[in-house]
Amino acid sequence: MSSDRLIYLPLGGAGEIGMNCYVYGYGPKDQERLILVDLGVTFPDMDGSPGVNLILPDIAWLEERKDRLEAIFITHAHEDHVGAVGHLYERLGAPVYARAFTANIARGKLEEYGLSEKVVRTVSAWPETVQAGPFSVGFLPISHSIPESAGLVIDSPAGRVVHTGDFKLDKTPLVGEPWDPDLWASVAKDGVKALICDSTNVFSPEAGRSEASIGDEIESLVDEAPGMVVATTFASNVARVKTLAEAGERAGRSICLMGRAMRRMIEAAIETGVLSDFPKVVPVEDARNIPRENLMLLVTGSQGERRAASAQLANGKYNGISLKAGDLFLFSSKTIPGNERGVIRIMNQFSEMGVDVVDDRGGRYHVSGHANRPDLVEMHKVMHPEMVIPMHGEHRHLREHAKLAESNGYASAIAVNGTMLDLGGHAPKVCGFVETGRTYLDGTVLIGALDGIVRDRIRMALNGHVLVTVIVDEDDEVLGDPWCELSGLAETGRSNAPLIDCLEEDLSQFIGRAGAKTLKDDDKLEGELRKIVRQTAQNEIGKKPEVTVVISRLVG
Amino acid sequence: MSSDRLIYLPLGGAGEIGMNCYVYGYGPKDQERLILVDLGVTFPDMDGSPGVNLILPDIAWLEERKDRLEAIFITHAHEDHVGAVGHLYERLGAPVYARAFTANIARGKLEEYGLSEKVVRTVSAWPETVQAGPFSVGFLPISHSIPESAGLVIDSPAGRVVHTGDFKLDKTPLVGEPWDPDLWASVAKDGVKALICDSTNVFSPEAGRSEASIGDEIESLVDEAPGMVVATTFASNVARVKTLAEAGERAGRSICLMGRAMRRMIEAAIETGVLSDFPKVVPVEDARNIPRENLMLLVTGSQGERRAASAQLANGKYNGISLKAGDLFLFSSKTIPGNERGVIRIMNQFSEMGVDVVDDRGGRYHVSGHANRPDLVEMHKVMHPEMVIPMHGEHRHLREHAKLAESNGYASAIAVNGTMLDLGGHAPKVCGFVETGRTYLDGTVLIGALDGIVRDRIRMALNGHVLVTVIVDEDDEVLGDPWCELSGLAETGRSNAPLIDCLEEDLSQFIGRAGAKTLKDDDKLEGELRKIVRQTAQNEIGKKPEVTVVISRLVG
Repeated sequence: MSSDRLIYLPLGGAGEIGMNCYVYGYGPKDQERLILVDLGVTFPDMDGSPGVNLILPDIAWLEERKDRLEAIFITHAHEDHVGAVGHLYERLGAPVYARAFTANIARGKLEEYGLSEKVVRTVSAWPETVQAGPFSVGFLPISHSIPESAGLVIDSPAGRVVHTGDFKLDKTPLVGEPWDPDLWASVAKDGVKALICDSTNVFSPEAGRSEASIGDEIESLVDEAPGMVVATTFASNVARVKTLAEAGERAGRSICLMGRAMRRMIEAAIETGVLSDFPKVVPVEDARNIPRENLMLLVTGSQGERRAASAQLANGKYNGISLKAGDLFLFSSKTIPGNERGVIRIMNQFSEMGVDVVDDRGGRYHVSGHANRPDLVEMHKVMHPEMVIPMHGEHRHLREHAKLAESNGYASAIAVNGTMLDLGGHAPKVCGFVETGRTYLDGTVLIGALDGIVRDRIRMALNGHVLVTVIVDEDDEVLGDPWCELSGLAETGRSNAPLIDCLEEDLSQFIGRAGAKTLKDDDKLEGELRKIVRQTAQNEIGKKPEVTVVISRLVG
Repeated sequence: MSSDRLIYLPLGGAGEIGMNCYVYGYGPKDQERLILVDLGVTFPDMDGSPGVNLILPDIAWLEERKDRLEAIFITHAHEDHVGAVGHLYERLGAPVYARAFTANIARGKLEEYGLSEKVVRTVSAWPETVQAGPFSVGFLPISHSIPESAGLVIDSPAGRVVHTGDFKLDKTPLVGEPWDPDLWASVAKDGVKALICDSTNVFSPEAGRSEASIGDEIESLVDEAPGMVVATTFASNVARVKTLAEAGERAGRSICLMGRAMRRMIEAAIETGVLSDFPKVVPVEDARNIPRENLMLLVTGSQGERRAASAQLANGKYNGISLKAGDLFLFSSKTIPGNERGVIRIMNQFSEMGVDVVDDRGGRYHVSGHANRPDLVEMHKVMHPEMVIPMHGEHRHLREHAKLAESNGYASAIAVNGTMLDLGGHAPKVCGFVETGRTYLDGTVLIGALDGIVRDRIRMALNGHVLVTVIVDEDDEVLGDPWCELSGLAETGRSNAPLIDCLEEDLSQFIGRAGAKTLKDDDKLEGELRKIVRQTAQNEIGKKPEVTVVISRLVG
């Protein structure tokens, strides 16, 4: 028997929803030739990553082994699968393969970084394959909430692995290929070693519904609207955007796309031939002059993003267009957990204008793009692999999915980010752990999530900040009094005197009684001054602020 | 006709869910005698109020008129109705009236502030009434998710107003009085001028379900659990806590309450006779020695609060007890929008331990405490008031509720915080606007939400902070070089040199070429130094930090 290993190693997406990044390898231990599947991002929030622009997987492990990396494959063009390609490409340097629509989006990302678009190579659907070291990889079409989503057929000398990517089982997806169980079964007919499978909706008990199931509801809603209609959805859901636009067109409305991502996605879909019959759209400048009852806007910002078109409209005006009483705003989307506050804010702003806000209303105006529990069972059955490895999910999703697979007789394992599995046997075997984590794009710089930089920002936000300045002369005597600058702290507290006065008074008193030994020793002096500030603030206002002490020593 | 006015003025709770605070007044314009209904809090979050402990209504308007304030009435003991009594009582000084259970909780809040518990007066249920200036006020029992919730019958010379408080129409609430339509109808039989009505669940299309409807499901779940069972719910939902405890008892388990709020609520319910037959509970010290399959913990923290028992257990250990594979954790609660991240974090932590987490699963293990849309219609019908004024809801809830009422023939109006309505006529009439807002409890100090203090903290969290120090001697010459301290910023950027070096270099160069006029002028110098820091940082790391400049002038 060969001593070569077939390994699977998630660097992102396993233990979280978002930031997909999966390594496969084949070869002798620690000399495996590698391929990467997806290179996505996740989004920051005020709770854990204030001020951060974007969150990327920590690819340090892979970067150190980039000489062994044969290729990068992108399953589809969602940000959590393709979003880090521009930011991280240079650190990996391997060619990027994708289907036409995904490749179009990926090229745009590389262009932003001034990188050659040529690194992205367009691949046709299965049975075309790409040779990447010991691997042969093909793109197997599957339905999802974006065009040209694909599972990957990954063949190696140790057998066939199928990586589903994100998927749903939709036989009428409106745009892109329908779920084709015969095609997938044909891939599986000679046996599949492992099915690496999307877990997002494992807790949804009913079979998923088709994209085609909501068209009529949307059409009646738009048809009956008396004023302007504005609809938002995920810009990449080209099928939905088309359904919305067609509903508007049938109701005699001119269609206008607002928001860069919305225009970009439709453009890419048309360029790549994914979309051929999209209603005629009018530019924003013309939309302003169209009577509101004849106008329908399709806008970005379904998640309440502050700078997107929907938030701007909620704030009052966007590109010269504003909503008013009698208009309709439709969220043809679901709110991703964690985004509720932003979405609710917008809903209330529209309510204040008298705009009627309609959300998905329990599924009337939105369907999910992921396979629900019964759909997962069907996928397992169609592919009848030796093992099912749950991917793309929080820990609770992976665990539930593994339990589901095992209850149906498949070997399974929970492998979170950094867990290396050997898929070579008849059951997954943990064969290593790799340090993984998150990299923050902060402004224009990449920083480590654990570098302490963002932690310091969070601390300032929670505790406020006091700056203490002391000038010490050549003889180690303090010149004048220490003084403070406060940021983010109440001005007065318990004693009703200004907090800054209390602090400076207590610091002065300390300096007055401090010995020469303390005054000579920067660390000691700084420590003492910090302690006093924190104690006094705690007494006065009940908070212990962050403290920066600056000791300026005059040199004689 | 009298020139006296009957006014309604929400200071909190109208335009938001939480922080309930409603003023009623009767008398000549601007000399109305006033009563206050509820004095609640809402909770801070990292997005808008980092580091804040609690959010209270801004009662400045009422405080200025405290000589006209006759009394404070508390409808029930939820934090968003009673939570600010301790913090704000001294600024108002009027007696507080409540039913026994609510009064018990309110007294606890005053005690924390060292205030006399005697200011809280216990009132029996309707037909007992309290005379408060021109008002006569009675507590009309109604079902909700806490014992002894009450609507208020508010009589004035201008007629009867009924303020529902939070409510649901539950004929079998298990603890506390059931919904009694005959009692409420009897109050309405001589006519109700205005029904001021809870709007929280106006978007829930189906009639609400009874607290009694979930007992069996909970019981089977607990009965079938092989390991330890831990359940969390809102501590104040005494009926639910009892249902859970009884399910545990029937399954032969010892019951242990964990978390201060949980014990406090059960204690208050027993003290006030609301609860008579609660299963025997064991102290935590004993629970540790009970075999896990014979133990059930009832814990605080259903909203993922970081310091509550559930979060502590998810982190590993709490009071010597830890969960492990095969144990069950039940969320007998719903996640309030905005709290999803915290709850999901806990679920995944338990998943990592192998603990089975069960949430409300679409209502099997939780029912809401608020009236749904059909229940609101029923309430309107039973009370057949001249007007329905929606309260307790975000703008979208108030608007929807007003539309609902109007569609059934009632006069209505959307009155958000600060909107004063005259209820004296046959329809509500806006008769003024009052400045309202939020007060933050920050540490131990009350600060205004718009004071800029928290805004500064948010800015530091988003942008990081740079401190610049310059020493200027008696001749307006800069001593040495300016130097910087950085907080929350990347250490290196575009040029690969440390950011701090880039900043100090650019600042030094500026100082070198700065004229005497600039060096003499603190404001000018500070402005220039700030500009340089922001520009250099933008070039290097793509961020414009907050900047504090300290200019130390040595005096000759």
